[in-house]
Amino acid sequence: MTEALETTGASTRPRRGGGGASRRAERTAVRIEAAPYIQRRIPNYEILDEEGLATIEANADRVLEEIGVNFADNPEALKLWREAGAEVTGERVRLPRGLARKLCATAPSEYTQHARNPDRNVVIGGKSLVLAPVYGPPFVRDLDGGRRYATIEDFRNLVKLGHMSKWVHHSGGTVCEPTDIAVNKRHLDMLMAHMTLTDKPFMGSVTEPSRAEDSVEMCRILFGSENVGPNCYMTSLININSPLTFDATMMGALEVYARAGQACIVSPFIVGGAMAPVSVAGTLTQVLAEAMAGIAYSQLVNPGAPVIFGAFVASIDMNSGAPTFGTPEASKILWGAGQLARRLNLPFRSGGALCGSKLPDAQAAYETANTLNAALLGGVNFMLHACGWLEGGLVSSMEKYVLDADQLGVLHSIAAGIDLSEDSQAMGAIAEVGPGGHFLGCQHTQDNFKTAFWRTNVLDYQPYETWAEAGGRDSAQLASARVRKMLGEYEAPASDPAVLEALNDFVARRKAAEPDAFG
Amino acid sequence: MTEALETTGASTRPRRGGGGASRRAERTAVRIEAAPYIQRRIPNYEILDEEGLATIEANADRVLEEIGVNFADNPEALKLWREAGAEVTGERVRLPRGLARKLCATAPSEYTQHARNPDRNVVIGGKSLVLAPVYGPPFVRDLDGGRRYATIEDFRNLVKLGHMSKWVHHSGGTVCEPTDIAVNKRHLDMLMAHMTLTDKPFMGSVTEPSRAEDSVEMCRILFGSENVGPNCYMTSLININSPLTFDATMMGALEVYARAGQACIVSPFIVGGAMAPVSVAGTLTQVLAEAMAGIAYSQLVNPGAPVIFGAFVASIDMNSGAPTFGTPEASKILWGAGQLARRLNLPFRSGGALCGSKLPDAQAAYETANTLNAALLGGVNFMLHACGWLEGGLVSSMEKYVLDADQLGVLHSIAAGIDLSEDSQAMGAIAEVGPGGHFLGCQHTQDNFKTAFWRTNVLDYQPYETWAEAGGRDSAQLASARVRKMLGEYEAPASDPAVLEALNDFVARRKAAEPDAFG
Repeated sequence: MTEALETTGASTRPRRGGGGASRRAERTAVRIEAAPYIQRRIPNYEILDEEGLATIEANADRVLEEIGVNFADNPEALKLWREAGAEVTGERVRLPRGLARKLCATAPSEYTQHARNPDRNVVIGGKSLVLAPVYGPPFVRDLDGGRRYATIEDFRNLVKLGHMSKWVHHSGGTVCEPTDIAVNKRHLDMLMAHMTLTDKPFMGSVTEPSRAEDSVEMCRILFGSENVGPNCYMTSLININSPLTFDATMMGALEVYARAGQACIVSPFIVGGAMAPVSVAGTLTQVLAEAMAGIAYSQLVNPGAPVIFGAFVASIDMNSGAPTFGTPEASKILWGAGQLARRLNLPFRSGGALCGSKLPDAQAAYETANTLNAALLGGVNFMLHACGWLEGGLVSSMEKYVLDADQLGVLHSIAAGIDLSEDSQAMGAIAEVGPGGHFLGCQHTQDNFKTAFWRTNVLDYQPYETWAEAGGRDSAQLASARVRKMLGEYEAPASDPAVLEALNDFVARRKAAEPDAFG
Repeated sequence: MTEALETTGASTRPRRGGGGASRRAERTAVRIEAAPYIQRRIPNYEILDEEGLATIEANADRVLEEIGVNFADNPEALKLWREAGAEVTGERVRLPRGLARKLCATAPSEYTQHARNPDRNVVIGGKSLVLAPVYGPPFVRDLDGGRRYATIEDFRNLVKLGHMSKWVHHSGGTVCEPTDIAVNKRHLDMLMAHMTLTDKPFMGSVTEPSRAEDSVEMCRILFGSENVGPNCYMTSLININSPLTFDATMMGALEVYARAGQACIVSPFIVGGAMAPVSVAGTLTQVLAEAMAGIAYSQLVNPGAPVIFGAFVASIDMNSGAPTFGTPEASKILWGAGQLARRLNLPFRSGGALCGSKLPDAQAAYETANTLNAALLGGVNFMLHACGWLEGGLVSSMEKYVLDADQLGVLHSIAAGIDLSEDSQAMGAIAEVGPGGHFLGCQHTQDNFKTAFWRTNVLDYQPYETWAEAGGRDSAQLASARVRKMLGEYEAPASDPAVLEALNDFVARRKAAEPDAFG
């Protein structure tokens, strides 16, 4: 075990300032470093005991058997369910006790998602934690430009930030909605950005089954047709229309991905009190029933297809109806859902840098840190929205992206656990220093200080006077400077020109095939 | 079990707006509510396994036996140690294996600290968590007045905020240093504030043994001489001069309190890498050795005196030498120290709203939330600095006080655990709403929405447009408004005039007895 994550396994590429350039420039330069995905050496936090878990499980089984779920506008799904032994009435599917669990059992407990750079492959499941950025906001905000509709340029900048962010393992998907591109074509430009501006793994489109097909097709071009299927190259987000409803668009995308051996996150999307009961126990019951039904369906489509048990849960402010984040109820649901997913032996998705604040201020950070900490200890395997989320997911914030991404380093270091090696026990240092001495100069400190402590890349540790003289900047201002620096120093990873041409041809052909549609 | 903390056991005193006053005014008025101290219904987080704990314990025993600790300028302490069987050489005290543990065994595993209002009594130890505000800063900061030396007026305002803060159970001690009062007299004014402006429990002075005597004397006046000793009325902070040194001032105060049956927190004060090794395992070893030695000494002075195993730990920024907070190393040490304290069957103090930021901004909140979350799950029983701490403890921030105090409500709600009552299982609601429905109007929601979710008192949940039209205020500005509101609506709890006169007489006499001393 080691706490020294700063260098462990990280591929470091120092940039600029080679040869005679000043050491000082090198020290302050942004370097492209990428930490491997987290492998927990710490226990998970288990809030429910066996009795509590059994109660929730029995209730979820009852929900599936007695109430059932709707598969809307999807006769093919109803046929599959009927053949599998479910009771189908109209669009309602009722699952005899045990059927959902039996079907879920064919899903792998962990899987590898491959990246263009094999060093960036991620294993999802087990003791791993893979961190991916914010997904979905139609707006972006930064200190210079304020809050505005997002464009493809913003999208590309966010992908670049992800590429440059050491603790972010995954390039994500819709890091913002590029609203300046037609709705029916923007998935092509988004995928091109993920495929060319970074070498980290990414997500596919889910907004239409045909766009999922395009995503698979582009992966065939990028990775080779023969590899797509045997290998997983995308993990895509399938939201359940809670309560208990699976719509045809999302299920259509899931069907495409499952058949192509690509992974899906099957995720109840719940604002407690609106899409689920106001109670934690009731919400957990519904989350489990929904996730089991969706995962079981993915296994009906293609047994063995990789799939993640998801739980996106917010509370609600009963005064305004607004979703709220970083709340105690959300943490409890996350912990409980993690236990339920592990009992199904499935990878678990939850958490994120979730917050309701309009600004990257104290509220945003309290809410975010509450969720990040809960997710780390709650055994999350795939954390979407791990950085950049603002305003309840309406806004991708550039400044919050780098602030959150910095905090993800804290998660890495906690997950490494406590090093109990003889060197780390430091008995020699305690004896050497003795009562009343200090450790700054002792040999153990000299040998270990570079890797002993996690270090921020953006927060301020200066003495008050130094900080005040330098302008007394708050976190958002410090983050803004870091965003500029990172984007200024960004360099794209190399691409194969022939592959690039083939991708561009595909995108051009698909764009020409239909007129622009907005909204 | 219940998640409904909003009303459970809380004593609510609605203020103003009685009779014909408008309902609206009552809804928005600050009310003086006080939640009872937290009683955890959730498990603790245990980062170390049995083997790891046994290693640290064996190492700490070796430190006490082979290296020992210094009791400086304290011949009486050395005499006590010698009589107890320790090996004393000069000021160095070496404890034969087992002695420290044997002495610690007479300390109570939990104790009650009594308050002027018996509803505000707190139990410290076991599954409880008692929250107390920031301690020690020479500066205060607020949005209107900026950063400045603290005065007794600031002190009183902070005590008033504590009295008005629902989730703060304890009035604390030196909520800021009243630098406009002579050093040798300010403890008298501080105690008067805690004794008259609130009815919550408080801490005594430790900066000189004579000031500890004054604190005990004032408690005798306030609570009755016959009660002080049989009952505990103060929990006071005794810092160890790490590494492994116990100075005469702090030990003198501890002796006064222990003899009077008043509680002390015996707390290593460690900036890792400076006062302890750079490694987590080494720091835990030193923390355990120091805490055991100090607690053992308190039991030598008065077997059975209430005492808390403390661990105040910060990391260090090796570039600037600044202490850093909310770091992964600090969380790991907190969790490990909590386990070690529980194995000694002692109450545990750690955590706090610790941060290094100069402003109540995102940095402050990330660091704070990291620590608050770690402390809740790490089994902390007494959390000093739970609100208002800024800039590494140099500054008491009015805005951060109310922001942190609001987050303490999150801890209360998490600690309540998951309610698995039949009502909370909500099977009827899930059946009633069914696939595709929504829960806002269902009976279960109507019955439970008022208490189902924790609610902030200061964060913003408004729609973007509403928030923007109202000025687009950030968390610090929202907090500033709340500070003004709370101080504007503050009312002192009633005091017995005869007791008040006696206290005033005592303070006047003590002040007249010696000239002012500054510094």
